[in-house]
Amino acid sequence: MRHCLLFCALLSLGTVTGAQSAPITPAPSSTDATAEAVNRFFVEALEHGQAYDHLRDLTTQYPGRLAGSKSLEGAVRWGQQVLSAMNLDHVYTQDVSVPHWERGAPESVQLLTARGAQSLTATALGYSPSTPTGGLTAEVIEVQSLDEVEKLGRAHLTGKIVFYNRPMNAALARTAQAYAEAGDQRNRGPGVASKFGAAGVLTRSLTLAHDDVPHTGTTTYLPGFPKIPAAALSLVAADRLSAALAADPHTRVSMQIHGQTFPDAPSHNVIGEIRGSEFPDQIILVGGHLDSWDIAPGAHDDGAGIVQSIEVLRLFRALGLKPRHTIRCVLFVNEENGGAGAERYAELAQAAPGRHIFAVETDNGGFAPTGFNLGSTQGNAHLRAERWRTLFEPWGVWHFSKGSGGADVAPLLLQGVTVAGLTPDSQRYFDYHHTAIDTIDKVNPRELHLGAAAMAALIWLVDTQGL
Amino acid sequence: MRHCLLFCALLSLGTVTGAQSAPITPAPSSTDATAEAVNRFFVEALEHGQAYDHLRDLTTQYPGRLAGSKSLEGAVRWGQQVLSAMNLDHVYTQDVSVPHWERGAPESVQLLTARGAQSLTATALGYSPSTPTGGLTAEVIEVQSLDEVEKLGRAHLTGKIVFYNRPMNAALARTAQAYAEAGDQRNRGPGVASKFGAAGVLTRSLTLAHDDVPHTGTTTYLPGFPKIPAAALSLVAADRLSAALAADPHTRVSMQIHGQTFPDAPSHNVIGEIRGSEFPDQIILVGGHLDSWDIAPGAHDDGAGIVQSIEVLRLFRALGLKPRHTIRCVLFVNEENGGAGAERYAELAQAAPGRHIFAVETDNGGFAPTGFNLGSTQGNAHLRAERWRTLFEPWGVWHFSKGSGGADVAPLLLQGVTVAGLTPDSQRYFDYHHTAIDTIDKVNPRELHLGAAAMAALIWLVDTQGL
Repeated sequence: MRHCLLFCALLSLGTVTGAQSAPITPAPSSTDATAEAVNRFFVEALEHGQAYDHLRDLTTQYPGRLAGSKSLEGAVRWGQQVLSAMNLDHVYTQDVSVPHWERGAPESVQLLTARGAQSLTATALGYSPSTPTGGLTAEVIEVQSLDEVEKLGRAHLTGKIVFYNRPMNAALARTAQAYAEAGDQRNRGPGVASKFGAAGVLTRSLTLAHDDVPHTGTTTYLPGFPKIPAAALSLVAADRLSAALAADPHTRVSMQIHGQTFPDAPSHNVIGEIRGSEFPDQIILVGGHLDSWDIAPGAHDDGAGIVQSIEVLRLFRALGLKPRHTIRCVLFVNEENGGAGAERYAELAQAAPGRHIFAVETDNGGFAPTGFNLGSTQGNAHLRAERWRTLFEPWGVWHFSKGSGGADVAPLLLQGVTVAGLTPDSQRYFDYHHTAIDTIDKVNPRELHLGAAAMAALIWLVDTQGL
Repeated sequence: MRHCLLFCALLSLGTVTGAQSAPITPAPSSTDATAEAVNRFFVEALEHGQAYDHLRDLTTQYPGRLAGSKSLEGAVRWGQQVLSAMNLDHVYTQDVSVPHWERGAPESVQLLTARGAQSLTATALGYSPSTPTGGLTAEVIEVQSLDEVEKLGRAHLTGKIVFYNRPMNAALARTAQAYAEAGDQRNRGPGVASKFGAAGVLTRSLTLAHDDVPHTGTTTYLPGFPKIPAAALSLVAADRLSAALAADPHTRVSMQIHGQTFPDAPSHNVIGEIRGSEFPDQIILVGGHLDSWDIAPGAHDDGAGIVQSIEVLRLFRALGLKPRHTIRCVLFVNEENGGAGAERYAELAQAAPGRHIFAVETDNGGFAPTGFNLGSTQGNAHLRAERWRTLFEPWGVWHFSKGSGGADVAPLLLQGVTVAGLTPDSQRYFDYHHTAIDTIDKVNPRELHLGAAAMAALIWLVDTQGL
């Protein structure tokens, strides 16, 4: 694309769509003043957004913020400091007891071939125990599903390594759906394989990027069956193992994993508030999660959500807005491998029922925002929010769908709180999710700031008009 | 974001929005069969798209495809070979005479300070002549606009280097608009500065990414005034120069540029066709431009458009569709610094009026598609296309706006042809535009393939239903 005189002339014919800072087409259901107010959030975020600078600090100073780690506790202090420097009305923490698993020394997965051992790029799954001293060496059974494991049964699986290799469905528009559909292999696959006698598990990483980067994530085991070592292979490694098995079904793999679970550790949700001018006891929440996987700097997951949530408060302050309801930013801990932060928060919220009127979560990456999902136990909140669509469309935010916000606010939904989740473009999210390459350079500052502005504008609309 | 049992349960409550391969909500104005047909383009592109592989070949084998270069002629042969291997009905070329400018040896811009010379990262603008032997050393006058140059006039500018430093407007949602609004500095700034006696020009790069990467692009000069050397500074360099001028208004800069314009060179538009089964003489065009800036691998600009246009033909073939009208893929040359390919194409089209019924251009980067702009001399084509919106929304393509397609199809619009331009997400485009970092790693395969599918689906709808 060039920019010559011809192109200029064409632009004047109306090539350019989307927003100017002003004026925009007024929303039919709103006044011009409402549109102008919404636009101010976006303009302020694009011109002076601080979320990206915060994200650089968080991800470079505190990568690998897994529950129980020193890095997470450093991030908790960082969150307190950042919020405390913002001249808020209240900054405090909630004590949370979180699980504590550690990877230990780097894992190793070796494909044993006639030509010798070949390294397969892998990462232990969260809660995987260690392999026995000397490692686990066994034949591998490749399967596509948990059902297949059940059908094969103990006779075929005892002592073997089960290899779950069903790919994510590339044909789906929303990558989160493909992730959800393939996720049982990682989430429950090791537990089910153990039930049928397997000695270990390998899973195909949950990603659509065909590269040599392995993606970790949490797994669960079944009560009464041994916890067996489990690791995710990169897609390159999974394809190599599959090809080796096609050539020789007796192919063996040697795994060395050093995972260990420790007693629960003390941690903290971090909270900052702007007190409401009319209804200080009624709360609109915005939040993300402070923890990340141990191998991950956690830029998109969920550093982006943390710095966007903080940015929402900054935007209200920078624009000189005094919200009617209290706006509370919550940096949850332990979303990745337990949800103890969200549970603790919901438990305390239940002690004062009716105080939360709305809760927005951001935990789908710092990509360009496209919409929101909304959930309510009192009818279709997404249809009620739809009236604001024309206010958001100039900024690329165009859909309001039915949903449950996200893992950290969903417990509030069960208490009757209306919840929402920011829905950014999803195409690249699972390229980086739960990996060592989820780094700041994968985040575009404008996309990150647009997401923060979208949430702030939605919160302002709920605060001033109700939902 | 994790994927635990809770999250699974919530998904079943309806968190996931967007498309599955089937079924989707039927479009009110269309049959289920229409929706299914549209979906097949997207599914095929996401599962088996070849555009990304083609883009890797094009950008690694033929970077720097500027008009008159050997690289562009290599790309022309590459385009012919790729199209010829696709079992199309007709592959051929159109002779085009293109301008031929070369950068020569690398440019150098030095900030002369009391502490010695400091290098400022810069890239000569297209059509810049060489500096005099020994370079150009002069004081610098910083301005924000062409108007300011006119006001300063010859008395202040004779023999000086004019430094255009007005930033792109970060507050606009659509970066193309910010680019258009700031673009006069690069497009016409050197010509206007020369009119008022300046000896050289530096411009702030047209980007929103605050880094040390300079962005080139074409410039023009005024008849009767000398062509003066001109280069774009990176934003880091522009800010350094501005700070130096604030400290000392007599700060001097030394420029060495080695640009040279040669006689026009022979080149070729490359064309491939699937012949229409009912109306072989009526043409639906899809195209992008094969040339790129000399310093740029041209992955987003416009390698993406080239490989997407080729992919449109592949999708029709792969799905076994026989279009009613001829579908013609055109790889235009010389979009970046002249538009000779588009002019030649339009000239030949005018010799057979009425044959083109629709022309779609893709030249806004290989990012996730969000909509189309449409233009017609017979009323509002974008409003007519709006009836298909619900077919596209499941794939993230949600807006049909008024426009003129793009620089390569706009001459056809003037002949009465209805045109369209793919509008992808624009946030990152100007981070890479016209730079050495416009490389394949900046392109996500899914986003690229979704764009190709969106165009193929739109073309199929026009082919089967008319617009």
